[in-house]
Amino acid sequence: MTKTDPLVVFTPSGKRGHFPVGTPVLTAARQLGVDLDSVCGGRGICSKCQITPEFGEFAKHGVKAEESGLSEWNAVEERYRSKRGLKPGRRLGCQATLQGDMVIDVPVESQVHKQVVRKRAEARDIVMDPATRLYYVEVEEPDMEKPTGDLERLQQALFDQWGLAHVIGDLRTMQMLQPALRDGEWKVTCAIYEGEGLGAARIIQVWPGFHEGSIYGLAFDVGSTTIACHCVDLQSGEVLASSGLMNPQIRFGEDLMSRVSYSMMNEGGAEAMTKAVREAANALIGQVAAEARISREEIVEAVFVGNPVMHHLLLGIDPKELGWAPFALATSNSIQLWAKEIEIEMHPDARIYILPCIAGHVGADAAAVALSEGPNVSDDLVLIVDVGTNAEIMLGDRDGVLACSSPTGPAFEGAQISGGQRAAPGAIEKVEIDPVTREPRFRVIGCELWSDDPGFERAVGPQGVTGICGSGIIEVIAEMRLAGVVDEDGSIGSAAATGTERAVPDGRTHAYLLHDGSESGGPRILITQADVRAIQLAKAALYAGARLLMDKRGVESVDRVVLAGAFGAHISPKHAMILGMIPDCPLEKVTSAGNAAGTGARIALLNSAARREIESVVRRIEKIETAVEPRFQEHFVNAIAVPHKVDPFPRLNSIVTLPSVSFAAGGESGDGGGRRRRRPRPAA
Amino acid sequence: MTKTDPLVVFTPSGKRGHFPVGTPVLTAARQLGVDLDSVCGGRGICSKCQITPEFGEFAKHGVKAEESGLSEWNAVEERYRSKRGLKPGRRLGCQATLQGDMVIDVPVESQVHKQVVRKRAEARDIVMDPATRLYYVEVEEPDMEKPTGDLERLQQALFDQWGLAHVIGDLRTMQMLQPALRDGEWKVTCAIYEGEGLGAARIIQVWPGFHEGSIYGLAFDVGSTTIACHCVDLQSGEVLASSGLMNPQIRFGEDLMSRVSYSMMNEGGAEAMTKAVREAANALIGQVAAEARISREEIVEAVFVGNPVMHHLLLGIDPKELGWAPFALATSNSIQLWAKEIEIEMHPDARIYILPCIAGHVGADAAAVALSEGPNVSDDLVLIVDVGTNAEIMLGDRDGVLACSSPTGPAFEGAQISGGQRAAPGAIEKVEIDPVTREPRFRVIGCELWSDDPGFERAVGPQGVTGICGSGIIEVIAEMRLAGVVDEDGSIGSAAATGTERAVPDGRTHAYLLHDGSESGGPRILITQADVRAIQLAKAALYAGARLLMDKRGVESVDRVVLAGAFGAHISPKHAMILGMIPDCPLEKVTSAGNAAGTGARIALLNSAARREIESVVRRIEKIETAVEPRFQEHFVNAIAVPHKVDPFPRLNSIVTLPSVSFAAGGESGDGGGRRRRRPRPAA
Repeated sequence: MTKTDPLVVFTPSGKRGHFPVGTPVLTAARQLGVDLDSVCGGRGICSKCQITPEFGEFAKHGVKAEESGLSEWNAVEERYRSKRGLKPGRRLGCQATLQGDMVIDVPVESQVHKQVVRKRAEARDIVMDPATRLYYVEVEEPDMEKPTGDLERLQQALFDQWGLAHVIGDLRTMQMLQPALRDGEWKVTCAIYEGEGLGAARIIQVWPGFHEGSIYGLAFDVGSTTIACHCVDLQSGEVLASSGLMNPQIRFGEDLMSRVSYSMMNEGGAEAMTKAVREAANALIGQVAAEARISREEIVEAVFVGNPVMHHLLLGIDPKELGWAPFALATSNSIQLWAKEIEIEMHPDARIYILPCIAGHVGADAAAVALSEGPNVSDDLVLIVDVGTNAEIMLGDRDGVLACSSPTGPAFEGAQISGGQRAAPGAIEKVEIDPVTREPRFRVIGCELWSDDPGFERAVGPQGVTGICGSGIIEVIAEMRLAGVVDEDGSIGSAAATGTERAVPDGRTHAYLLHDGSESGGPRILITQADVRAIQLAKAALYAGARLLMDKRGVESVDRVVLAGAFGAHISPKHAMILGMIPDCPLEKVTSAGNAAGTGARIALLNSAARREIESVVRRIEKIETAVEPRFQEHFVNAIAVPHKVDPFPRLNSIVTLPSVSFAAGGESGDGGGRRRRRPRPAA
Repeated sequence: MTKTDPLVVFTPSGKRGHFPVGTPVLTAARQLGVDLDSVCGGRGICSKCQITPEFGEFAKHGVKAEESGLSEWNAVEERYRSKRGLKPGRRLGCQATLQGDMVIDVPVESQVHKQVVRKRAEARDIVMDPATRLYYVEVEEPDMEKPTGDLERLQQALFDQWGLAHVIGDLRTMQMLQPALRDGEWKVTCAIYEGEGLGAARIIQVWPGFHEGSIYGLAFDVGSTTIACHCVDLQSGEVLASSGLMNPQIRFGEDLMSRVSYSMMNEGGAEAMTKAVREAANALIGQVAAEARISREEIVEAVFVGNPVMHHLLLGIDPKELGWAPFALATSNSIQLWAKEIEIEMHPDARIYILPCIAGHVGADAAAVALSEGPNVSDDLVLIVDVGTNAEIMLGDRDGVLACSSPTGPAFEGAQISGGQRAAPGAIEKVEIDPVTREPRFRVIGCELWSDDPGFERAVGPQGVTGICGSGIIEVIAEMRLAGVVDEDGSIGSAAATGTERAVPDGRTHAYLLHDGSESGGPRILITQADVRAIQLAKAALYAGARLLMDKRGVESVDRVVLAGAFGAHISPKHAMILGMIPDCPLEKVTSAGNAAGTGARIALLNSAARREIESVVRRIEKIETAVEPRFQEHFVNAIAVPHKVDPFPRLNSIVTLPSVSFAAGGESGDGGGRRRRRPRPAA
């Protein structure tokens, strides 16, 4: 390259250099380290290296680019355009050569390391860097004088043409290779998995000639209740299909510990649960493959995340050691295995990657949340809460990350609540109580109208109002507290004490009548004292876990809170804070990350460097075991109050005023100095 | 260590050093690099470190060793002796400590790298260095504060206690590990395979506590006709059982090319042959395991060798490419795979190693012969011939090795011979013809007497004399040549020309009556002109291959000849040379290596460094393809004469005198100047 040679400037990278007349654009891009894709190695077959020449006077770059700056269309490029078509203005980077100064734009779809943009503003984009990629090669024909095997000549071609060393071809490769080489006239496309470790790569599939199709991967989040799966194009990063199924293990036990017990008490119980979850995963693969219009055999990789019990059961490891102290994991590191080792039906040589577990109660799902939310790279101190039957809690920033899990129980999911139900059409999900009249209004899933809007009953549909889901129960109790129907201790006042007839007697306590559908044959939905107590226990466990991490970190407040999990997506930050689920913090700093575990699985699928990153992050996370921390019990007891017995919640108090009422036995109103309290005890 | 500390001298190594009083003998041995075994790491459990203290004045070593030079028996040692017993004079090296100057003998069975002595004087001993070994470790108990997995703590223990890094535990390990650790109270024995490549090792099995048993391996030689298997103790190197079976693929074709044709002409033919050979291997494993009184699950490794067609069929690769030029191998390098990948029934995580192939016609069996016979380390120039349906031929020394294969056809195995049969009781295997009377005498397999010894007919048993086997046919034709019954061209003379009534007319040619059993209902065994022609073709192909390698090497003679293969073990060197099968050479320099391919497989099983060695040797072997070498045809034609048309055979002529007779048409005796010759044509 000399100064008199044509100058080329690539956008958007801005990389620039001089190249001799006749240099293919792909060659120039490679020499400058510009991210321009190619599967066929510059043979005008794959069209991955499409570029857009820009013409005109570019003062910014100091370049005047004329039409004559690129070569005329050659025969290869013309044939490609006439057979396959090219977007207007596009050229093939491997065929077009530099004739004069040029500005060349590399469109996103031509970049290997393209970014998959995530919808949330605070989320990092995903850079494409998948572990499995396609490589087109031309293999030397066999020669009696040099009797190397077909595999060895393929390996040589991969090294010579792509710089790939230590490429393993296993028995399946050997079995398929000979016909593929001969059918493709010594040209083949290989799918190669470069995540073997120790610098090795592995041939997954060989196709004769240039393979027109893509290759696909799956991101699985195996939850106790739901199994979710995304099917992703490993070249474009596009999600082609997503689906979810109830975890069929529910028939063996609603929550994790009941499944561990099932395994302990039933011979073959663990095996039955392993079979169930694998069958469900296979059914899901069938669904997403059909939706994406691909075959199972085109799916060459999958990433799985799940809590430790799901993780062990998926792997066929008895989870009983997770049922008692010291909650020993069979393995904590990340795992690579063949799909067929765990009977997952996809490409016969497909690889599975499972994220590491953080601790006996903080699993690969929490690791995936960490990968998605990046607490380890946060500038401010972030509290991340994945709300479910067990809450996984992380607190940290660039200086370090702490993690624990806390046994919230299933109340947040609507279980153990009198009118509770799963989030489904007909379930109350949002509630407001008028602070003056104490009359409620609400919305149900599947209906845009509020319950006091005209036409609500018709709009809600024939199933009517059926119950209340997790986010609804949080809202209604927070609204009851805000309206003075529930006091700091969590007691529901009588009609006399609260001034609303909706406070109805319920045995020796009171309940709040949220909805009476009995006239039209529907349910009466009461929020009972027991419901409030169940939520108090659950939220106290969650808060105590967070507070324990704050103690360890030596802070009294956090800068922001991220609510992860499908449930987190529906929680109203204000109501969560009134309830005292999460520490006091500016409301606008409480955000939802949606299914962050599933997103973390997708990141690990699309970016193999992210696997090394999360393995390293998990090793450095400091694990706190709540079961053996003496302060946990103290934090738990203090957190039973609504919002809290001792912590001040100044930011919350700056936006809402919580009525100073008290309904405990011995005092029906006011701050009741001499009341006797019945405190719920933690379940553990 | 200072000069005033006790001095210890280890025998047989002669390694010596000073150690502080109280140093365990095992510790001293390790620091000096003395080869002293230990599976339990010095805990007095495994007894692998047994040593024999030697007492007295050792002028050779400058040491006076007294009884007080070693510590008294401690409790661990006493308990071991009372429970398990120790040979008189033995101590446990990990328990006995140095108290004064000592001479310590390390018995062979206490050496890790013990030598397995081979019976043949010229063979190298096998140094024990198996890829799979046992390691006893004590694993840290799980701890809630440090929630690493059981696998990770086992890996840490293997690193801390044995220096093993990159130890992979796969799904099976994870599944079996938790109960093993708890049953063994955090002490386990692992079988670890250190042959993964790229510095990795893999856990194959975990036993609770100290594993009393050993681990076993198999060496398989898959021949076209026979499959042989040795079962070997991977700790002692001892062969516990050996067995062989007919290769059931024979029903698809007698020789290699007919099996390749079967695969080409029958849909599913290759699959059927693959199934047959795997079933036979599994049957053999059952036999040797029963004989060795072990279970299949204790067999953790196997090494397979075989010619390229057997190699491909075992692996489930269609061998059709081996049936035509350029005879492309699917893979030429060595292969590692799981036993279950090729449906071989042994330990579920057992590993299989297959030696590399040298060329499309020179397979892993030839590589195994090279490993056993070491032409690459020979000081003199050695010709190695593995005689079978296809002969594999190697020529070389430290300066380089050449290899080729030559299509001898099955005549040497008794096929295509009128009275031919397999080597079995009743088959004539040795023949002498009196040079004066031209009367023969012979011996048959299964009988020690010669046919002219008194009592022969009774001794030979009820089946009588049934035919002639490969080595017998070589001897009889060579003896016929020596007795002047066959001339240089291979023609059998008439009774008139040869002076013996045993030369009988047979159509337009003559035959030699070797045995007439017709009076007692047995066969008349004639050596016909066609028999002689078949052997001439076979031996000419063999000789031409050897001669081609000699040309390439630029030599006119070789220093020694090694005959490999079961057949080679029974060939008489003198007769082989009279026939001109092998080049002229001192007779005492012609030796048999027995089943050298099977021995090579056993070496690769017991010494993992030998695997790297043969892979490197095979890469450097120069391969000659006889089919495309123009001089092969010329050598072949010249080699049809007995012993040879042009090569002089001076050493042979110095010990025998071949009659100068000629029986071709036109001259019944003398050197017959004007005879017309009918030359057999090569089959190819």
